[in-house]
Amino acid sequence: MAAMIELIQSGSVTSAKGFAAGGTYAGLKTMQEDTLDLGILLSETPASTAAVFTTSKVISPSVTLSRERIKKGTARAVVANSGCANCCVGLQGLTDAEEVASLAAEHVGVDPEDVLVCSTGMIGVELPMALIRQNVGNIELAGDGGDRFARSIMTTDTHPKTLAVSLEIDGRRVTLGGAAKGVGMIHPNMATMLAFVDTDAPVEQGFLRTALTRAVGLSFNMIDVDRDQSTNDTALVMANGAAGGPTIEAGSQAAGLFQEALTYVCIALAKELVSDAEGAQRLIETVVDGARTEAEARTAARAIVSSSLVKAMVHGRDPNWGRIMMALGGSGVELEESKINIYISDIQIVHEGLAIPYFKDAVVSAMNVPEVRFRISLNIGDASATAWGCDLTEEYVTFNSAYST
Amino acid sequence: MAAMIELIQSGSVTSAKGFAAGGTYAGLKTMQEDTLDLGILLSETPASTAAVFTTSKVISPSVTLSRERIKKGTARAVVANSGCANCCVGLQGLTDAEEVASLAAEHVGVDPEDVLVCSTGMIGVELPMALIRQNVGNIELAGDGGDRFARSIMTTDTHPKTLAVSLEIDGRRVTLGGAAKGVGMIHPNMATMLAFVDTDAPVEQGFLRTALTRAVGLSFNMIDVDRDQSTNDTALVMANGAAGGPTIEAGSQAAGLFQEALTYVCIALAKELVSDAEGAQRLIETVVDGARTEAEARTAARAIVSSSLVKAMVHGRDPNWGRIMMALGGSGVELEESKINIYISDIQIVHEGLAIPYFKDAVVSAMNVPEVRFRISLNIGDASATAWGCDLTEEYVTFNSAYST
Repeated sequence: MAAMIELIQSGSVTSAKGFAAGGTYAGLKTMQEDTLDLGILLSETPASTAAVFTTSKVISPSVTLSRERIKKGTARAVVANSGCANCCVGLQGLTDAEEVASLAAEHVGVDPEDVLVCSTGMIGVELPMALIRQNVGNIELAGDGGDRFARSIMTTDTHPKTLAVSLEIDGRRVTLGGAAKGVGMIHPNMATMLAFVDTDAPVEQGFLRTALTRAVGLSFNMIDVDRDQSTNDTALVMANGAAGGPTIEAGSQAAGLFQEALTYVCIALAKELVSDAEGAQRLIETVVDGARTEAEARTAARAIVSSSLVKAMVHGRDPNWGRIMMALGGSGVELEESKINIYISDIQIVHEGLAIPYFKDAVVSAMNVPEVRFRISLNIGDASATAWGCDLTEEYVTFNSAYST
Repeated sequence: MAAMIELIQSGSVTSAKGFAAGGTYAGLKTMQEDTLDLGILLSETPASTAAVFTTSKVISPSVTLSRERIKKGTARAVVANSGCANCCVGLQGLTDAEEVASLAAEHVGVDPEDVLVCSTGMIGVELPMALIRQNVGNIELAGDGGDRFARSIMTTDTHPKTLAVSLEIDGRRVTLGGAAKGVGMIHPNMATMLAFVDTDAPVEQGFLRTALTRAVGLSFNMIDVDRDQSTNDTALVMANGAAGGPTIEAGSQAAGLFQEALTYVCIALAKELVSDAEGAQRLIETVVDGARTEAEARTAARAIVSSSLVKAMVHGRDPNWGRIMMALGGSGVELEESKINIYISDIQIVHEGLAIPYFKDAVVSAMNVPEVRFRISLNIGDASATAWGCDLTEEYVTFNSAYST
């Protein structure tokens, strides 16, 4: 049974029952007082919680703290700040992360151990704790504060990324809300991606972790802006059960539906991140099918969207399929050149490894769209995967070489 | 005993005794008749020969042919063309590569089995065999033709890359000459790097292969322009023994000296490739020391020079050391954040993982040079490695997104 997923108009992390959120200006990233930079997402009751974090060996103490606290499988709140990554600052970083959690816990009236911390922004500078102490109390937690929360985690994002969906599971209506931020690094040393999903469905903690790992593998782990992995990446899901009904456990039909909805939300947020990437003008969606294994399909698809030369050719609307072959060849996956078919926006341009005559102007026009689609059929197996990237533009370079000191 | 390596003024592949070379215009890449695109490097006698090739799974039939023929360990000549990669063209590619070798063999009077083939240029189009048949006979092989050979393999290179060195080994003077081409991909689907080294030293074939692998590991495998691996990359060394004396074999003092000279030549050519990379304005040299193993030092150094964000910060002369930490953390090598020191052009800016107060203008000035140096001391071991990259500029993007169809 496929899930009937309904998109909620202007949905956010506060669309799910039993969640409140808010954000305030604390002065962490700009002098403009209408710019939010400190936010809290709160569950009215303890929520089953799971998260995946950056695999970098250089890690923000905010991540270290959250990773430790999440081990018990439940949480009440997340406090997040933008403007400062709280990374590469030595032991002070952990002390500060603990204090941020305690300040937020006091403000919302929960145990500090139940509060997780996320930070994003400049690497190598300490959290401005005086500003945080002064302003955390200004965060108004509200049942419609999801948009303010999403704004408070933005860095170079041009708009907040937020959505919510609902679906019926076992006769009850369940909602999942999400917020995320990207998007690259305009300010020097920004540490990047944060994604939050919450749901009022009651979800068993072990299954929630499995479901998140699966969803992240198909969404955030399949996008690329610049092949640079941040020190602060976090994707987190909270399930507070406010929708009522029996707990969703692995192996059930309900679990299948929940997985589908969670994956849907994560993919939607991931695509938003790529579309809003620094300087980007086009999204690249790449489907690799006919691969030997899913792992190989994923590797190949991600290699293609990560190639600077493929990104540049999309920017120039140039159907240089040789670059796709180059990226495929360099990815190390099993392939037989003479079986490969390549399609750009549904127009086949390579058949069994060889160029076929195509009307170039048609392909160029087909690439002049906000979402360019590549399909590569390896024709040696049954596995497939999809990855998303963005084009490489002069603006990305200008952005990231902007002289900041 | 360290080798006393002397640089030869205006040296090239024809500086070593017993080698002749030349190049001609065949019309493969432009209508300009002063642009060479087909060349031959010839040894007067059979030369001990070794090569390393691209590890891509999509491989030019020119590479396939050369890889097969080189197995016997000797060769007489290499014929190289620019403008067409002879890649992704199906079975025709191997037929064409064989014919190119035969045409060159006939012209210089050697067995076709002793001729190797290298191609670089557009992927996905067949070699224009009529032009090659017509023009291969115009290649004048000469004892001073090294420069013409180097010109004939250029694609987007702005100048030929060629050098020669000499040193004394066991009482005789030995010369090594080199030619290489880079440099990225301005024309769509270019397949990229070729490097040729020859020497009049007599070198045992097994040791020659080991020595080349070691030299390539420290040179061509430590550079990065855009993280995209080509389908045609080849580095090749020929040793014809014209300098006389006993054959150089592994384990001897002579072998040590030869290794040093070969590594010197390969590093010099590799740095030339990076300096002349598409759109590049600065070379980035990164030394990682104090690593646990050489493999980890290499991985870390190469990760740093490969990061788009590090490249962009060098373009903007911005000492954003957080990006270096980010690249280091993402590289997966063992590290202890609190032991890391970072130097930019000899100015220390990070001590034991933390920013130290430095005069920013001084660092910015120190980065306003053609070669920016980073040193990262991990301080957890004794191993070190050096890698080279170039800055990422708006010109690279403009270049590679240039609408070509």
